[in-house]
Amino acid sequence: MKKFMEPESIALVGLSRKTGSGSYNIMENMIRFGYKGKIYPVNPNAQVILGKRTFSNISEIREDIDLAVISAPREDTVNILRDCAHANISAVIIVNQGFSDADSKGKAIQQEIKDIGKKHGIRILGPNTLGVLNNYNNFTTSFMPLTNERSSVGLICQSGIFFVGAQEFSGSIGKGIDLGNACDIGFYEALKYFREDPDIKIIAIHMEGLNEGAKFLSLASEVTKEKPVILLKTAGTETSMKSAMSHTGTMAGNFQVHRAALNHAGVIFLEEDGQMKYAVKTLSNMPALEGDNIAVITFSGAAGIMVTDALEKYGLKLSTLCHNTINKIAKLSPDWMPLGNPLDIWPAVMKHGAAKAYSTALETVLSDSQVDGVVCIAIAPALPDFSFLDVSGSLNMVMKKPFNKPVVAWLYGPNTEEISKKFESENKIMTYPTLETAAWSLSILRSSY
Amino acid sequence: MKKFMEPESIALVGLSRKTGSGSYNIMENMIRFGYKGKIYPVNPNAQVILGKRTFSNISEIREDIDLAVISAPREDTVNILRDCAHANISAVIIVNQGFSDADSKGKAIQQEIKDIGKKHGIRILGPNTLGVLNNYNNFTTSFMPLTNERSSVGLICQSGIFFVGAQEFSGSIGKGIDLGNACDIGFYEALKYFREDPDIKIIAIHMEGLNEGAKFLSLASEVTKEKPVILLKTAGTETSMKSAMSHTGTMAGNFQVHRAALNHAGVIFLEEDGQMKYAVKTLSNMPALEGDNIAVITFSGAAGIMVTDALEKYGLKLSTLCHNTINKIAKLSPDWMPLGNPLDIWPAVMKHGAAKAYSTALETVLSDSQVDGVVCIAIAPALPDFSFLDVSGSLNMVMKKPFNKPVVAWLYGPNTEEISKKFESENKIMTYPTLETAAWSLSILRSSY
Repeated sequence: MKKFMEPESIALVGLSRKTGSGSYNIMENMIRFGYKGKIYPVNPNAQVILGKRTFSNISEIREDIDLAVISAPREDTVNILRDCAHANISAVIIVNQGFSDADSKGKAIQQEIKDIGKKHGIRILGPNTLGVLNNYNNFTTSFMPLTNERSSVGLICQSGIFFVGAQEFSGSIGKGIDLGNACDIGFYEALKYFREDPDIKIIAIHMEGLNEGAKFLSLASEVTKEKPVILLKTAGTETSMKSAMSHTGTMAGNFQVHRAALNHAGVIFLEEDGQMKYAVKTLSNMPALEGDNIAVITFSGAAGIMVTDALEKYGLKLSTLCHNTINKIAKLSPDWMPLGNPLDIWPAVMKHGAAKAYSTALETVLSDSQVDGVVCIAIAPALPDFSFLDVSGSLNMVMKKPFNKPVVAWLYGPNTEEISKKFESENKIMTYPTLETAAWSLSILRSSY
Repeated sequence: MKKFMEPESIALVGLSRKTGSGSYNIMENMIRFGYKGKIYPVNPNAQVILGKRTFSNISEIREDIDLAVISAPREDTVNILRDCAHANISAVIIVNQGFSDADSKGKAIQQEIKDIGKKHGIRILGPNTLGVLNNYNNFTTSFMPLTNERSSVGLICQSGIFFVGAQEFSGSIGKGIDLGNACDIGFYEALKYFREDPDIKIIAIHMEGLNEGAKFLSLASEVTKEKPVILLKTAGTETSMKSAMSHTGTMAGNFQVHRAALNHAGVIFLEEDGQMKYAVKTLSNMPALEGDNIAVITFSGAAGIMVTDALEKYGLKLSTLCHNTINKIAKLSPDWMPLGNPLDIWPAVMKHGAAKAYSTALETVLSDSQVDGVVCIAIAPALPDFSFLDVSGSLNMVMKKPFNKPVVAWLYGPNTEEISKKFESENKIMTYPTLETAAWSLSILRSSY
């Protein structure tokens, strides 16, 4: 994989002469992205592209080439691949669609490509792929513009949408491998690569179909002991399986069997497309949950009840709070106030102010040995008029102590975006848009993963 | 309910002398909100509050009073209610906590209050409530600041959090009734009121416990024929039911039984807290789905597969596209491109540009008699550099024709917020943050509701 992720020299075969906005020119995107290695454009119909001398064929280049990126009509791919073999190129990305994702002719070409690769020792990524993204050396083979952020997320996917729309899925990508039709390089190798990569702390996977299932699962159960692996398995119904056949040409396999096997391997199995970014944020910023016992601090009885529903749905439970914990909050509350878990501190807020009530409550429950994690329900007031209701500063102060327990928050009120940023500013307390997501996020921190 | 929602004169009993930021003064909030009726503050320890003469007791007022709002310690409530009876007041809101939501003493007081109300013909809202919100006459009894927007949503809840955090739940509220502990006025009456209110087109409900279950369900099955009713039932687990006992003091009842009965009555049953605002947006802006057959237009095979998974999860299916539909898209696509549903128009976008490919595809599938609704997966490019990928204008142009079929969209790319606003600017195509939510939203538009 190193030649794919850190190539020193690249041949761009079939590079388009069109450049500028809307041209999706790979070389233009690559240079803009910051790639510093050598680039050899190959296009028989051009002399110069973007100021670089072009070659009419790979064989003309006569220099060492780590990686060839082929974006040419499928009919030409077989011959180009043979040229790569002659030029001693051992790593190739095939960008175009129209192979096992298309008709029987495309399937036949993909088989031929695979055979040539095997015969000549050429490793192939794709076809039908944006290729790779490595923000640690400002390198991408994508023809679509991508964002460059050195996050600790290693992404393996079967669609460029996870590169282009990273903010919708993983939130950020440090390094990415788009397997596309996965005719050669597959999930097993990509997972192995990220396992050994010290830059990568979390591995996020989008999977349509899985080849080498047993091998992958066996590796996954090792990797999950070292780094969390989150996985969005799509093509779960009969109809969508058929679509997957014409998307990446892979057999999706039985969804329930996959889920069970992946869960068993310690993989965090995502149930819907919106969950990946919350999983990444959760796993990147918070310590493991060492038990199932959760304390809920709330402003609102109704919200406390809603999060209790959600916690139980995800296999967590409300902890019994020790006598001392209850006593400390009772001192701030009216006599008639029934105290328990969820810990409703609204009367305490009315009496002593939000900052005192919240910070006392958080410090107290975190000190309670029966509590493994906390959900904090707080208000997101308009600033500066209602800044006395903003408890982000007070709670982050409490979090300076080494409790080593996860605290998730859900905010409501007119100013969730701004207050949420203040909550998350110390990378300790993470906030979520719904109580359901907050509860689920705590659940994936269980140390059994 | 009219005296609660449109009172011409109000007594505020137990009104605090504290005013300004952080004082939660009901009168101050009421005046700021725009209430134009008469207000009589009652507080034996003050002469003047906010420039208004105060009364030491209700009996001193000697004017017609439509509504009394009581915010006093629970011990005083019984006597105040007796004073209300003497003053011929027939509508009372009791704001404070500490009744059936608290200890046995609180439960006893609530029972006494209920009995006094019954005896003297006083209708009671609460206790433990923010009261009412009526944006159509700028009236609220809430001590928390609220937003004022004349939306067509009537909200019935058992917690002030749905008023204060409206943007997290229903998105907006036109009129609201917080039942609190619901010692007298309950779901049945509130639902009846909104049924008959021409300003209200959608009824959103947060329910912990349901009294008069059979009566409510029978009414609901009538109302749902006229206006959609969406309902978030909380306190669904054994633990959260116990919490509900100490939140509003109501029995939550069996969750599964409730869900089945409410679904049967045509109520749209919400499964999590984040769904309410998407339900409101969907029902407010889009026509009913007259069948289960959905066409998916996509940029990305992977996303098409993900939304297929979600559509089937919510009981919808991919429609067979007619020959003519397929042919029109085939003309824009390369020969090798397998076309079906999901309709992958990426190659057509590459060849003919996003605007042409998307508008042709949308118009064609909407004209297909086998299609009842559409999911459109589009890109949210950075503007103005990539405006050629923004198809919001082209699609809204197509929507000017009277197809009368719902179209939902999911956007990905670096600029979802801005492009989403452009999509929704004509109130035709609604956008959703996840494919899961987009699919679910279509499903609640089924005309059977």
